[in-house]
Amino acid sequence: MSKIERLRGFKDYYPEDMQKREEIFSIMRNAAKSFGFLPIDYPSLEMLEIYRIKSGDELVGQTYNFKDKSKREITLIPEATPSTMRMLVSRKDLVKPVKWYNIPKLWRYEEPQSGRNREHYQFNADYFGETGIEIDAELIALACETLNRMGLKGMYVVRVNHRKLMEKILSKLGCVNIQSSISTIDHFRKESIETIGNKLRDDGVVDDNLNRLLNFLSKSYPVSEIQNSIKDLGLDLLEDEDFLRMISTVEFLFKNGYEDIVYDPSTVRGLSYYTGIVFEGFDVDGKFRSIFGGGRYDNLSQLFEGQEIPAVGFGMGDAVLENLLKEKNLWKVDNGHSSYFLVGMGREGKNKAANLLYKLRRNGKTAVMENSERNISNSLKHASSMNFTHAIIIGEKELTERSLTIKNLINGEQKKIGENELDEL
Amino acid sequence: MSKIERLRGFKDYYPEDMQKREEIFSIMRNAAKSFGFLPIDYPSLEMLEIYRIKSGDELVGQTYNFKDKSKREITLIPEATPSTMRMLVSRKDLVKPVKWYNIPKLWRYEEPQSGRNREHYQFNADYFGETGIEIDAELIALACETLNRMGLKGMYVVRVNHRKLMEKILSKLGCVNIQSSISTIDHFRKESIETIGNKLRDDGVVDDNLNRLLNFLSKSYPVSEIQNSIKDLGLDLLEDEDFLRMISTVEFLFKNGYEDIVYDPSTVRGLSYYTGIVFEGFDVDGKFRSIFGGGRYDNLSQLFEGQEIPAVGFGMGDAVLENLLKEKNLWKVDNGHSSYFLVGMGREGKNKAANLLYKLRRNGKTAVMENSERNISNSLKHASSMNFTHAIIIGEKELTERSLTIKNLINGEQKKIGENELDEL
Repeated sequence: MSKIERLRGFKDYYPEDMQKREEIFSIMRNAAKSFGFLPIDYPSLEMLEIYRIKSGDELVGQTYNFKDKSKREITLIPEATPSTMRMLVSRKDLVKPVKWYNIPKLWRYEEPQSGRNREHYQFNADYFGETGIEIDAELIALACETLNRMGLKGMYVVRVNHRKLMEKILSKLGCVNIQSSISTIDHFRKESIETIGNKLRDDGVVDDNLNRLLNFLSKSYPVSEIQNSIKDLGLDLLEDEDFLRMISTVEFLFKNGYEDIVYDPSTVRGLSYYTGIVFEGFDVDGKFRSIFGGGRYDNLSQLFEGQEIPAVGFGMGDAVLENLLKEKNLWKVDNGHSSYFLVGMGREGKNKAANLLYKLRRNGKTAVMENSERNISNSLKHASSMNFTHAIIIGEKELTERSLTIKNLINGEQKKIGENELDEL
Repeated sequence: MSKIERLRGFKDYYPEDMQKREEIFSIMRNAAKSFGFLPIDYPSLEMLEIYRIKSGDELVGQTYNFKDKSKREITLIPEATPSTMRMLVSRKDLVKPVKWYNIPKLWRYEEPQSGRNREHYQFNADYFGETGIEIDAELIALACETLNRMGLKGMYVVRVNHRKLMEKILSKLGCVNIQSSISTIDHFRKESIETIGNKLRDDGVVDDNLNRLLNFLSKSYPVSEIQNSIKDLGLDLLEDEDFLRMISTVEFLFKNGYEDIVYDPSTVRGLSYYTGIVFEGFDVDGKFRSIFGGGRYDNLSQLFEGQEIPAVGFGMGDAVLENLLKEKNLWKVDNGHSSYFLVGMGREGKNKAANLLYKLRRNGKTAVMENSERNISNSLKHASSMNFTHAIIIGEKELTERSLTIKNLINGEQKKIGENELDEL
């Protein structure tokens, strides 16, 4: 038996879960489509080197990498951005803006834990070639719209910050090692306030400045309090272009119906390549890891090619989303459509059933027929247990009359229709 | 630059191709659904051993296998069946029949060639737990229905055979090494008639028998000629249960609207585990490799667990399908729906456009807005080139009137509507 076990840290999806997952992927695709994003796809294997370019050796240690038969170092892709970048820079003919989405499978070789398997799907959307606040807002709106369409409106909050604004705040408060402090703040919710304070002090933020910074970092600010939060820091940044850009983005989203947004100075996204707005979505109760995260990364294309291409994007994994939807009792398949279970009696009844079966299917309906030798009552029980909404019964009487008996398996109602009325189902 | 090259034998999919691919996957999912098949998913990595169980070392040599950090031999999955089997036998509570489909990515480490990359998607459908001819027919019908919905009706032919019938024919003609002859016949279209003849002779088929067999193998037979084809062999098989089963399956399909089917004795499917009907779909011109293939394999579950579970299934790769659709000029995105490109003039016009933009998107429409500083005429040209069907123009006049100018970008027609009529678009 052990020879055919599933690998540790991986999951099988049976229909009871996979139907919902298909629905979620479909919501993602349709939301992206309605925002004018177009689908792409790339290999699941890449040269290991492209992850070294972007993230250095730390990430590389967590990948499923190996040498292929030609001794090349290759890896199962651990994230989406490098492959997307590779595709972007290798086509000079693309008309900007370029708006792409995809839902690739990604792999990480790390200890399995809740909301994080060794393999997961991630919905990614990226917008290349334009820089306005409407563009930053569009990515956040797409993430929100996707969650809203899953029924999660009001159950999540987006924490927004601006990377350059944060760097300016740190600098004005005396920080001399910005990248180090950004990394420290990236762990704000995971480490004690003492640890965070000590690290920031080591980077040059001391005394009153340190206290004000820690106080500032410990809260999130709704749109109406953003200006005051900065004023309270005692810094003259209300006319700063990055501050204005950040607050305009949030206001733009508010105005257009996406209101579950706060300014959160401790949301910095650790990766070094972000250059502007950064954001992460969380469940309001704070029970789970982030649902999605992203930001602007205008310089990354230079690492791949040398030419700067403005870029903003996000990734939304399927694992946290599944946990959240289950917790909110939303992990149910939306079975709005009718499905038919055909029962024909005797050879002739079965032949007629088969014939109608294929007609229904060609009309796009979900239809199956009873192929086993159950009696009618057990057939109907089976059909109910398989969640079919209707049974269609063809016995001797129906054959003579050229009629069909249709039983609604949800409310038990039963009626007869003429055979030729089948197309109207 | 070489650091960020794509791996050899792999493909990127840009939107111009990926949109069509998404459409094809969606057709596959909907066809499966209308036949009552339910989706599953499994890891892309499995223990190498499960392929040894089914296929021996030949296949193993063609896989992307490697040792993980715990020194386990693992591999990127080269085919769907073993993972499906693993899922099936590890759940004792499943109510039969079990009808599953999925569209996994599969990997093979072999020389790239036309219609065969190192990575591809494959649509798989399997039906477990029942054995009637309606079941065999259902799988063939699902494959056909899927192709029909892509517009390929009349452009493909399904070659059907019955593995046990073939074994009986070989035996009656003097063959003493059935499995060897089946492998020989599996290469019937790839090797010369002399080579085939010599190999069959070595297995015991000689003289008149050999000539009759080669003649029999060299043709396909429409439903009306199946009986004669067997009679011409001089064998008494017209009442044989496997012969009757095969011909009933074909007749059943004919009766239910799937008529592009022939009996083809040289279609045997090389793999040793088939136990009944086998089938392959080809383009009628015979230009490409098989579009799909499958058959009944009632014994395979025993290799995984010990209990026999009747099974019939097929796989349909995406690569040959793409080549065929391109050749038939069917590789076009079905853009039946409207999409809107909003152009707002001035700050106020842009604000209004943004507002309408998000309304349209929430209504499920595809909508984007002009964010660059192009003039109106260039905006409309850009919108046309991006295949938007309509432009919505909001200038000063429209703002005053609370109206919108809608320009049909396909026929050039232009009209004004009230702002509140937007929901009716």
